[in-house]
Amino acid sequence: MQRADSRDSLWGIVREWRRQGHIIALVPTMGNLHAGHLALVKAARASADRVVTSIYVNPTQFGQGEDFGRYPRTLEQDLRKLDAEGCDLAFVPDEATMYPFEGDEAVRVRAAPALASVLEGEHRPGHFDGVVTVVARLFNLVGPDVAVFGEKDYQQLLVIRRLAEDMGYPLRILPVPTVRESGGLAMSSRNQYLGDEDRSAALQLNGVLREAVERLASGVGRERVERDAVARLESAGFKVDYVAVRRAENLAIPGGGESELRVLAAARCGNTRLIDNLSTK
Amino acid sequence: MQRADSRDSLWGIVREWRRQGHIIALVPTMGNLHAGHLALVKAARASADRVVTSIYVNPTQFGQGEDFGRYPRTLEQDLRKLDAEGCDLAFVPDEATMYPFEGDEAVRVRAAPALASVLEGEHRPGHFDGVVTVVARLFNLVGPDVAVFGEKDYQQLLVIRRLAEDMGYPLRILPVPTVRESGGLAMSSRNQYLGDEDRSAALQLNGVLREAVERLASGVGRERVERDAVARLESAGFKVDYVAVRRAENLAIPGGGESELRVLAAARCGNTRLIDNLSTK
Repeated sequence: MQRADSRDSLWGIVREWRRQGHIIALVPTMGNLHAGHLALVKAARASADRVVTSIYVNPTQFGQGEDFGRYPRTLEQDLRKLDAEGCDLAFVPDEATMYPFEGDEAVRVRAAPALASVLEGEHRPGHFDGVVTVVARLFNLVGPDVAVFGEKDYQQLLVIRRLAEDMGYPLRILPVPTVRESGGLAMSSRNQYLGDEDRSAALQLNGVLREAVERLASGVGRERVERDAVARLESAGFKVDYVAVRRAENLAIPGGGESELRVLAAARCGNTRLIDNLSTK
Repeated sequence: MQRADSRDSLWGIVREWRRQGHIIALVPTMGNLHAGHLALVKAARASADRVVTSIYVNPTQFGQGEDFGRYPRTLEQDLRKLDAEGCDLAFVPDEATMYPFEGDEAVRVRAAPALASVLEGEHRPGHFDGVVTVVARLFNLVGPDVAVFGEKDYQQLLVIRRLAEDMGYPLRILPVPTVRESGGLAMSSRNQYLGDEDRSAALQLNGVLREAVERLASGVGRERVERDAVARLESAGFKVDYVAVRRAENLAIPGGGESELRVLAAARCGNTRLIDNLSTK
């Protein structure tokens, strides 16, 4: 596996690939790779000739008081895992490479507000603007034909798909299903913040979502399903940001007759904020 | 010359060029082409194997009450001129192609405020956000190796150079000197709004800028030069938005010892708003 830390070294490699006609896939990550990330790399390999995985903890998508400082950074292990998974190039930029200008000197991207201001956007103001600002840079720098994102961050997936479609990026967004631990907990770098007690509570998040999906299928109304799910999570010790049943396509409130809904939740377990989501299909 | 109106037809053509290893230049225009635009196409031809000229009157860069509606649209003549100049591809998107989503459903780019909020930005709030929003789309859609812009819109040139550098676009911004009519008036599609009387006043704009450059060279202070230039323009019948002596590199107020300054002006002549600028070098 090759490694590039600068724009020039990245461009030297991908230009040559492009000249050879290779299809290039990009897997953007913040590092601290787990089986969920490696599933993205596998999907990338299956859909392209060359795979670039970026490792960059993006400051612009963290809010004040969020966990940017303590977000786990494990570069050497990450590189070994990527190499073992058959990734061709690890792109590991520093901040000056990703953000050569600061503050008022910098260009920013604003995500589509209709998608980005609800749910996560309500609880993490500015988060998705930071996400699209860094993802647009990665699209520009790498020029991928395919970009791979996990369904675990379902709203992010929709926000990025909109970025690509609306801004005219000539690439395909490839979504990959959430990878879960044996108890159903969605894989996340933030799971390691959980103490033993928090972890046993955390396991209930997916169970509550599965129950919500079953109740919707049996005809229980959306608002009652949401309300009961919040109550169950609270009695399991969560502080709940939201449980929401939305149209899978655009996160709008369902009007009835949708072929696919998505149940999304965010809740705090101790100091750890967890998110998860399930499809009704 | 080929013509593409949709994303798919554009991509079909440029992908094939890229596969053949061609260097691609992009000349973004709003149509109504004059000798200034054709100088951009010439510069593009000299620096690339294939030239794409886009023709699109971009609504997001016009403010309320500006001339979007009456901006001159002369597509058939434009296409003939581009063909004669050796342009390879005219990209003529409609609004749904450039902006498939509207309002709160759309992604926007925010130009670097330090560059975009002064001068033109003060008098046309939001203008440069509209410019970078459309230019980023064109960069994404076309994927040029070189993008050509005129020095006539000097602040725009700096704003777009920053877009490219900060957002990681793998391309070179190629600036082209302003083309002028025999009296010195900078070529502009808006010149045709001028009546005969306005036109003879308009001719003085460049003269006042030339005088300002000479006075700076002879040691007259910046603020006095600006003030006197405003007075001369006003007595010639202009309503002046600004005359400003700035650092050529970033439009900051000069601190002394700069190797290059730029004198920039915007003024209204009748109903027509004209801009121009000159270097002190």
